[in-house]
Amino acid sequence: MQTSESLERVAEELSKLPSIGRKTAHRIAMHLAKSSSEEVTALSDSLLQLKERIKLCSICCNITEEDPCSICSSEKRNHKTLCIVEEPGDVFAIEKTNEFRGGYHVLHGIISPLDGIGPEDIKVKELLMRLGGDIDEVILALNPSVEGEYTITYLSKLIKPLNIRISRIARGIPVGTDLEFADEITIAKAIEGRITL
Amino acid sequence: MQTSESLERVAEELSKLPSIGRKTAHRIAMHLAKSSSEEVTALSDSLLQLKERIKLCSICCNITEEDPCSICSSEKRNHKTLCIVEEPGDVFAIEKTNEFRGGYHVLHGIISPLDGIGPEDIKVKELLMRLGGDIDEVILALNPSVEGEYTITYLSKLIKPLNIRISRIARGIPVGTDLEFADEITIAKAIEGRITL
Repeated sequence: MQTSESLERVAEELSKLPSIGRKTAHRIAMHLAKSSSEEVTALSDSLLQLKERIKLCSICCNITEEDPCSICSSEKRNHKTLCIVEEPGDVFAIEKTNEFRGGYHVLHGIISPLDGIGPEDIKVKELLMRLGGDIDEVILALNPSVEGEYTITYLSKLIKPLNIRISRIARGIPVGTDLEFADEITIAKAIEGRITL
Repeated sequence: MQTSESLERVAEELSKLPSIGRKTAHRIAMHLAKSSSEEVTALSDSLLQLKERIKLCSICCNITEEDPCSICSSEKRNHKTLCIVEEPGDVFAIEKTNEFRGGYHVLHGIISPLDGIGPEDIKVKELLMRLGGDIDEVILALNPSVEGEYTITYLSKLIKPLNIRISRIARGIPVGTDLEFADEITIAKAIEGRITL
């Protein structure tokens, strides 16, 4: 059956977004077709405004509306400690914990030789330029994937000669989970990273 | 932490859509912030175009770009049989089966006294006007919820005196599912609706 062309186009555009599959995209398109013009315009406007306003912070490469971003320009933070993350979303995740008061550096990706992504495709050059300044600690908060491990190895080789303290966030059993549901590698890493009491 | 205002606005608009929660909305907003202007504009344009072009078919009340819709104007279909559904999405779901060759009527909702939705709030009047014409069978394909049952009872009381054959789609065990995972009511309905072999 031929469904409407404009409906299909919305569904197609939506299904390009993360977490939205073909079926959900169709369901949302149907919902929008029934929604009022004001609701759809509000969504459409918010998208256009986002693209107009958002840029990358010239210091930490996080997404921001003002350059430098609120973290880089804050006087309350310790800019000698840098937390390296893959994506802007990771900054928000760490900020929500209220535990870290240093600065960030967003790589916008991860080194992945299999996908043809090398250090020059992510913000490694920008990181090295910052490390030439007044930085004494770097915390690697990358995801514990194969590519994450590879990137951690690559970056630590680059950073160690600069005489900067370097660490990675702990791998272990998530709080609130049962040991019995954790996979072997996580358990092994949790034992390896045990803390003396 | 203050995340960007325009990002929050996109996330808020997205989280109003079905199947998108707060967290997914945020993730998509992040994704869009990193996407190219062309991609975001394509999405935004498709939304505006949808609202411009989509209207309700004056016959079956389904959403369409042309009035009457392709089903109502098709000569290959049997317009004496009407399948009554709640939402436009249900039409697409039934069309995908390629089993039904009659016409449709979209109610755009369901009678739900608890939510204050009566027959006058959905397309019942439009249905009755059509039934005055040349219709000899009505199939009620409403969802098997409490409100669905209520609406089925209501409509069948209205339609029966018109001397039109009326039926409802079968309730039973979904194909490919195990009996052991079905709830009691579904099993009871499946037994009740058993077919003699």
